[in-house]
Amino acid sequence: MTTSDVIGTGAGADAPAPVPVGETALLDLDEVGGRVERTTLHGGLRVLTETMPGVLSATLGIWVGVGSRDETPAVAGSSHFLEHLLFKGTSSRSALEIATAMDAVGGEMNAFTAKEHTCYYANVLASDLPLAVTLLADLVTEATNTAADLESERTVVLEEIAMRDDEPADAVHDLFSETLFGDTSLGRSVLGTVESIEGLTRDDVHGWYRSRYAAPSIVVTAAGRVDHRQVLDLVTAAFGDRLSGTGEPAPLRTGDLEVVRPAHSAGLIARRTEQTHLLLGAPSMGRHDERRYAAAVLDAAVGGGMSSRLFQEIREKRGLVYSVGSALTHYAGAGAFSVYAGCSKKRVPEVLRLIRGELDRVAADGLTADEVARARGQLRGGLVLGLEDTGSRMSRLGKSELSYGEYVPVRDVLARIDAVEEAQVRSVAADLFGRDTCLAVVGPYRESDLDRL
Amino acid sequence: MTTSDVIGTGAGADAPAPVPVGETALLDLDEVGGRVERTTLHGGLRVLTETMPGVLSATLGIWVGVGSRDETPAVAGSSHFLEHLLFKGTSSRSALEIATAMDAVGGEMNAFTAKEHTCYYANVLASDLPLAVTLLADLVTEATNTAADLESERTVVLEEIAMRDDEPADAVHDLFSETLFGDTSLGRSVLGTVESIEGLTRDDVHGWYRSRYAAPSIVVTAAGRVDHRQVLDLVTAAFGDRLSGTGEPAPLRTGDLEVVRPAHSAGLIARRTEQTHLLLGAPSMGRHDERRYAAAVLDAAVGGGMSSRLFQEIREKRGLVYSVGSALTHYAGAGAFSVYAGCSKKRVPEVLRLIRGELDRVAADGLTADEVARARGQLRGGLVLGLEDTGSRMSRLGKSELSYGEYVPVRDVLARIDAVEEAQVRSVAADLFGRDTCLAVVGPYRESDLDRL
Repeated sequence: MTTSDVIGTGAGADAPAPVPVGETALLDLDEVGGRVERTTLHGGLRVLTETMPGVLSATLGIWVGVGSRDETPAVAGSSHFLEHLLFKGTSSRSALEIATAMDAVGGEMNAFTAKEHTCYYANVLASDLPLAVTLLADLVTEATNTAADLESERTVVLEEIAMRDDEPADAVHDLFSETLFGDTSLGRSVLGTVESIEGLTRDDVHGWYRSRYAAPSIVVTAAGRVDHRQVLDLVTAAFGDRLSGTGEPAPLRTGDLEVVRPAHSAGLIARRTEQTHLLLGAPSMGRHDERRYAAAVLDAAVGGGMSSRLFQEIREKRGLVYSVGSALTHYAGAGAFSVYAGCSKKRVPEVLRLIRGELDRVAADGLTADEVARARGQLRGGLVLGLEDTGSRMSRLGKSELSYGEYVPVRDVLARIDAVEEAQVRSVAADLFGRDTCLAVVGPYRESDLDRL
Repeated sequence: MTTSDVIGTGAGADAPAPVPVGETALLDLDEVGGRVERTTLHGGLRVLTETMPGVLSATLGIWVGVGSRDETPAVAGSSHFLEHLLFKGTSSRSALEIATAMDAVGGEMNAFTAKEHTCYYANVLASDLPLAVTLLADLVTEATNTAADLESERTVVLEEIAMRDDEPADAVHDLFSETLFGDTSLGRSVLGTVESIEGLTRDDVHGWYRSRYAAPSIVVTAAGRVDHRQVLDLVTAAFGDRLSGTGEPAPLRTGDLEVVRPAHSAGLIARRTEQTHLLLGAPSMGRHDERRYAAAVLDAAVGGGMSSRLFQEIREKRGLVYSVGSALTHYAGAGAFSVYAGCSKKRVPEVLRLIRGELDRVAADGLTADEVARARGQLRGGLVLGLEDTGSRMSRLGKSELSYGEYVPVRDVLARIDAVEEAQVRSVAADLFGRDTCLAVVGPYRESDLDRL
């Protein structure tokens, strides 16, 4: 059986021929000697590696294409709960044995769950890579997820929710998603709710594990002092035939998210905080939209650095906040642009007025040529600087494969950024900043105050 | 004039002969081709560089040996306030020009202030290192610190204090220092207080700048794709003779901190949080105490990883918390050992009982040979893994030089960790865990509740 994967080399390039299962494709060989390779194993499980000269370590990631976006409200938080539970034990290892094996070599092992994927990872000295593959593969294939462990871990997850609630800068982000995406799977928190977590049964969580952790949805990535052939051998030995699968990688997430929200909607968590924490934003394009490069340039110039308009107007000239900045988030078929600010309640009206004024001005007039050029430079430099450690390289491989089904060399992304023109940015600004906005607020307010903000 | 610096090569090694001003010493040449060099320039300013093969970037740091420990209560927060103010403009650059220059190349420029030092840093592509040196040197030598900028930045710093207060995990750390070190310079927050910040004048802050930012207190460090000779030329050109100095590096901080605290003291910030955030701890040794390596092994085994006693007993077996862990902090002549936990109020009595029980048990019986071996492995691996990026290397050079006046090769630190024996750990545990403890609490309590905790 052959796989249908398309291994792209960037914008405008012709798609190369599909690579048969078991054959390895060389995707990149860069000027400092880095080498990216990719193989699809027989179950449909994909393996990507990137060698980095000059490092002593490797970071391994096992990515599973499941996240909170796949959950119904009744089982909200299952993917994240499961991610916790996997560390509690497997058919051959206790939680203590898992932890001890990694601590003994000074490695860092952890995991995170997002809306569209779950990732288990370990950063180790290169000589300990076999241990990392063995341990993480064991979690992903042979976790026992016992009822007793589930009860114990339920409290831990509830404590994690409480911790999020206590950190207003975290709480406001979850509230913003809820306000923007409403009652959809993207609107719900990755953590779930106290109610959904209290209601999860062993069958819910273990069933989720058995159905979702299948070879076609799994991508193994490793970066650092690694050898592709060695990683393939380790992965083959560790996974064996323990993962079921169609033999082909799972299809990409696509499609648009239908969200119907009232205009100018707002959400509030009333709390006696010193600062009011605000997120103001609007829906944006999804990750397959080619306008995302122009949007990234826009985001950088508006709120991405110390020279950005929002930082200069609100912090530098007026000293109204400690933190202010913007962010773009992309999912399949949906996305968000948002501005964060934290300040004392008495400064909120002026801060909101300045943010809205700046967004309106950019929507009407676009950016100057200087701003566009600077933002391109900022993105280019930031991209390269952000890829100097094994963890970020490992992460880039995993996210690219799960999100786009292809690896795009860094130089091609740099070229796409360079190709962004002032007119494209103006067009994206007019679109994004002309939309109805959502506001999420954590602070000392009542619901009835929201209309005046 | 010659300098009196001692460039050590690690434990047990004879100190090499002092290196004359202007001459460069090769301090290390490691197996992956890294090279560490050091030069003292004529004003007493020190320059250390570390080359890292295989990277495209460089991180530059300008370290100034001044921090909140040097402040009196009336001007608490001056060092940190000054760190903010430097970015507001110099005799030749506005705040916008400073920010624009760095954003245009995608570099990251920032600064932080600690109790014993202040650091300005920039991470840039290697070709932008000249820009980074020019900009940061300008801040450190030619900031104007105008009264108008001071007024504007005063609000920003007050907002930063409010932000700290809203994050219970941050607030509890400052409260712990205050509880443990009492009314001493180490007990006060780096941020200062609302009162001290409101009272600072331009003379206070600019006076602090003129008196403290002198060549003998400054260390410039750079790591990554750097060349020592090039960095020396850039630093010499950028600083010129604009910094006064004795010509010799400033003496090391030494001496003991006299702290008189009541037994079992406790501090509280009463807040309606979901979780109670706790720090329980005791004074520890200062950074020149050779027992710190045994203490690091102890800390790792007790609360440093997922296999540690506290994590296993409190989270893994009983599911009582999301976060629990221990930490060691060293200053000149003083230090702290502490355990952090966050959990719902109803679980606090059991969590505190378990923490105290574990510390008592280790104080009485020490650790097992297995635990000591594993903790050594954890520290060794963690040390090497933690030094693979240019920022951490740059930081290590700066802290070592300011704190110890010497560079210790990584392999020598690894050897010191390896030399830690079970009996030494037992002796340190009996000492540290036998001391009267302090407790800092952020959560829904009253002062009168503290006695029962």
